[in-house]
Amino acid sequence: MNTPIELIANPRLAADMGLLVLHPEDNVGTALGAIRAGTSLSVNGGELLCADEIPGGHKVALRTIEADEPVRKYGQIIGFAGRLISKGEHVHVHNVAYREFDRAGQAGTALRETDFVPEDQRATFQGYRRSNGSVGTRNYIGILTSVNCSATAAKLIASRIENSGVLDQYPNVDGVVALTHSSGCGTGGDGNYGFEVLRRTLHGYANHPNFASILVLGLGCEVNQIAGLTTGWSLSPDKSISSMTIQAQGGTKATVAEGVRRIEELLPEINKSQRTTVPASELILAMECGGSDAFSGVTANPALGAAADLLIRHGGTAVFGETTEIYGAEHLLTSRAESQYTADKLMERIRWWEQHVTQDGSSINNNPSPGNKAGGLTTILEKSLGAVAKGGTTNLVDVVEYAEPITAHGLVFMDTPGYDPVNATGMVAGGAQVLAFTTGRGSAFGCKPTPSIKLATNTPLYERMRDDMDVNCGAVADGQLTIEEMGQQIFDLILAVASGQETKSEELGYGDNEFVPWQLSTVL
Amino acid sequence: MNTPIELIANPRLAADMGLLVLHPEDNVGTALGAIRAGTSLSVNGGELLCADEIPGGHKVALRTIEADEPVRKYGQIIGFAGRLISKGEHVHVHNVAYREFDRAGQAGTALRETDFVPEDQRATFQGYRRSNGSVGTRNYIGILTSVNCSATAAKLIASRIENSGVLDQYPNVDGVVALTHSSGCGTGGDGNYGFEVLRRTLHGYANHPNFASILVLGLGCEVNQIAGLTTGWSLSPDKSISSMTIQAQGGTKATVAEGVRRIEELLPEINKSQRTTVPASELILAMECGGSDAFSGVTANPALGAAADLLIRHGGTAVFGETTEIYGAEHLLTSRAESQYTADKLMERIRWWEQHVTQDGSSINNNPSPGNKAGGLTTILEKSLGAVAKGGTTNLVDVVEYAEPITAHGLVFMDTPGYDPVNATGMVAGGAQVLAFTTGRGSAFGCKPTPSIKLATNTPLYERMRDDMDVNCGAVADGQLTIEEMGQQIFDLILAVASGQETKSEELGYGDNEFVPWQLSTVL
Ligand SMILES: [Ca+2]
Ligand SMILES: [Ca+2]
Ligand SMILES: [Ca+2]
Ligand SMILES: [Ca+2]
Ligand SMILES: [Ca+2]
Repeated sequence: MNTPIELIANPRLAADMGLLVLHPEDNVGTALGAIRAGTSLSVNGGELLCADEIPGGHKVALRTIEADEPVRKYGQIIGFAGRLISKGEHVHVHNVAYREFDRAGQAGTALRETDFVPEDQRATFQGYRRSNGSVGTRNYIGILTSVNCSATAAKLIASRIENSGVLDQYPNVDGVVALTHSSGCGTGGDGNYGFEVLRRTLHGYANHPNFASILVLGLGCEVNQIAGLTTGWSLSPDKSISSMTIQAQGGTKATVAEGVRRIEELLPEINKSQRTTVPASELILAMECGGSDAFSGVTANPALGAAADLLIRHGGTAVFGETTEIYGAEHLLTSRAESQYTADKLMERIRWWEQHVTQDGSSINNNPSPGNKAGGLTTILEKSLGAVAKGGTTNLVDVVEYAEPITAHGLVFMDTPGYDPVNATGMVAGGAQVLAFTTGRGSAFGCKPTPSIKLATNTPLYERMRDDMDVNCGAVADGQLTIEEMGQQIFDLILAVASGQETKSEELGYGDNEFVPWQLSTVL
Repeated sequence: MNTPIELIANPRLAADMGLLVLHPEDNVGTALGAIRAGTSLSVNGGELLCADEIPGGHKVALRTIEADEPVRKYGQIIGFAGRLISKGEHVHVHNVAYREFDRAGQAGTALRETDFVPEDQRATFQGYRRSNGSVGTRNYIGILTSVNCSATAAKLIASRIENSGVLDQYPNVDGVVALTHSSGCGTGGDGNYGFEVLRRTLHGYANHPNFASILVLGLGCEVNQIAGLTTGWSLSPDKSISSMTIQAQGGTKATVAEGVRRIEELLPEINKSQRTTVPASELILAMECGGSDAFSGVTANPALGAAADLLIRHGGTAVFGETTEIYGAEHLLTSRAESQYTADKLMERIRWWEQHVTQDGSSINNNPSPGNKAGGLTTILEKSLGAVAKGGTTNLVDVVEYAEPITAHGLVFMDTPGYDPVNATGMVAGGAQVLAFTTGRGSAFGCKPTPSIKLATNTPLYERMRDDMDVNCGAVADGQLTIEEMGQQIFDLILAVASGQETKSEELGYGDNEFVPWQLSTVL
């Protein structure tokens, strides 16, 4: 029995039980679940008879597509019809050809003016205003390590304070975070690119407004000497910073005792920090996708993009990266770049990656894998468009390198690997005070000192991992919310979390083990 | 006032307050502290008048050295006299030239028969004999992680059990160790060399006899799928192994609860393990130097080499690596190689490194740095000889790649970086049940499940970091013990630690944060 299914009218992103049309110019729709051959659907008032079986996540032609005509999804070209495709036909690798077309394009050909919210109507949140003007969403004490050799001592200091109960007296202190890593020695030093990236990352964390205080802990004889590491640091004047090495302190016990003493001494002062009302324009939202599925690119990523658009309209900043995952769709970003300089910076990083990955025989050309194809992704463009969707629709105002400070307001791209902890670490180092993480498979992630909001791309995942997921973007696929409505909910939650509301990953205790600076140096 | 100083008679390694002669064929001695110009020393009954001031760690000519004559230390050529050097003259870069000579040499030109201790007189220790015949020195429960994304859940399981007090009922269980790392996804998969090295490392830990039980914890969607990771594993039949993923369990809380439940269920059985008397030939001693100083190569490393010689004479195995730090002295190892195959394997790895380090502009050619030179090291050979010294004097029976199982008895070389946690992780993965770590600057290190013994190269360090150091090899420089006596003490301690005696680093709580598999994959 073939019951016609009525599509929801929202033309930009119509959701129903069966088919999602992502953009009014699209000539394909995406099946949310398997649609049997012969099913009759009603799309925007017209009838669509599915000639083939359309597996979930796969595409169906909304109208006749002539041979060589562009196939459009997200309003973008994802490939070209390899032959005439009839209305209602399954659209996939068997009838879509991928060929190069001028993708790098000119900067700014797709610019649009940002519809800024009037200053007096802009959103606010409750944040910790630091004396250098930056705003924290949390009030942590950080222990940074120059090298793996001081990791255990750093963890011992943090756990001794956390377990002593002393923090109960200081409710405005969110905790002591020991950020440890595996590098800092056995690498090239000054002048080595990877070494400089590690130092830049540590500097970014030291500078982060979510840290009221920083203790830098070293061993003593490491390549990453604390004196060199902290040269040129200019932190907020109200941020207490101190450092020590295990060797100078005379061993582990003395180091831990001294670290605990120094931090306990600071607690009364740090506890005096108070949240005040600050404009949302102070926020830098980091966006990340991990454990993607067929829904990532059609529910959670576009919804997060809508939230980013909102934040930017309120004067704020949103940053995303994962250069390896936007490869093939970079023209969509350069065409939105506000300057040729910004477009060129992005293309320069793309070129860098093309070379970089050859060092171990990997490839940045993330053509759909057999698994991707089984899930309905036809071309590299379609795949990368799903990742780009979280960048929303505003202009690209800046491109920064990994862990560089993010200073622009608007949409920023940071060059990072797609690997979640490395990507997030770079964006937090850049200054992001809130992170939103979309996941289809169910990623477990936190990134102290920045709270991480988890967005499930589909309802079954949300139901299965309720303890870990903050938002169910499956509501879009379920036809309960439009992308815009979902984006508004995410935006509201971002402000609430920025104001102190605990995320699921904070409640679970994530964030101490996911500090993973991008390792680029050769281990010697 | 120039008081003649009498050298201790031990011809191989004579120590006194002023000068150390490391080998009877040496034509230079090493000043342990500054010796003023005009000081008269008595060396082996003859008089040595120091013509120059000799800084501590620097060399003095024991007799006239003709122009172009080899300069010998450790009985080895470290360079050639650039001009005639008079007896009593300072020997350093101003009068020593380094030139290539045939170093790669023939395999086996310096072989000597091992003076094995008769079977019935061989040493024993108290170890955990596993049903596959392997022997543990500790009785831990291990949680291995396939990917960084399961790190927090793994730590939560371990800390919940450790903090619950339940282990108090099970005195034969040494604890629960969560070994987390930063990789496992965002890399190439099957066929990628770095990915295979990670899997090999995890396999080695799973197989380690110091683990009575293994829980493999994953996220679910990672590149390093547990099914692929554990393919072909053949662990000891008495080792319980189980695995799970956070995604299949339905989130973090469910995963932690299930992990705690599974481990608690195993405790009564694992607690039944008993130490029994086993031969020292079952031991694999890993040797590592880190935070080296001018004394490393003349006190702790040769003393550790003497201990390794003893262990090997008792039928055991000693392994060392740090390919980047023996570079330039590889001919000393190939000339001791028991087969051309073994010699070729070492040279093949050396050639691999020469290429590998070019990828970020680093160099394996660790010529003495300005700091090294100020400390008295004249040539790359002299520097690398100090690292090779911990290999003792027995024949080289095998060369293995990073984290490969160590199966030979005798002296084995493992190709590893010099970076301490990466080096140690490889050797523990290879099966080492005890590690001895020499340090001049004061490294803080542990490598669960294997105990780490810390050997200070000098007395001031030992005094300053007594809480962290197990042995004071400064006694050699102080003239209190010969290298052989020091080596015997280390050997005795190795047996005691293998039998359960706690090391300083175990007492302090090291070993959970120093698991650092060699990262060779490009982060994508
Ligand atoms: Ca992604
Ligand atoms: Ca990612
Ligand atoms: Ca215990
Ligand atoms: Ca070393
Ligand atoms: Ca080392």
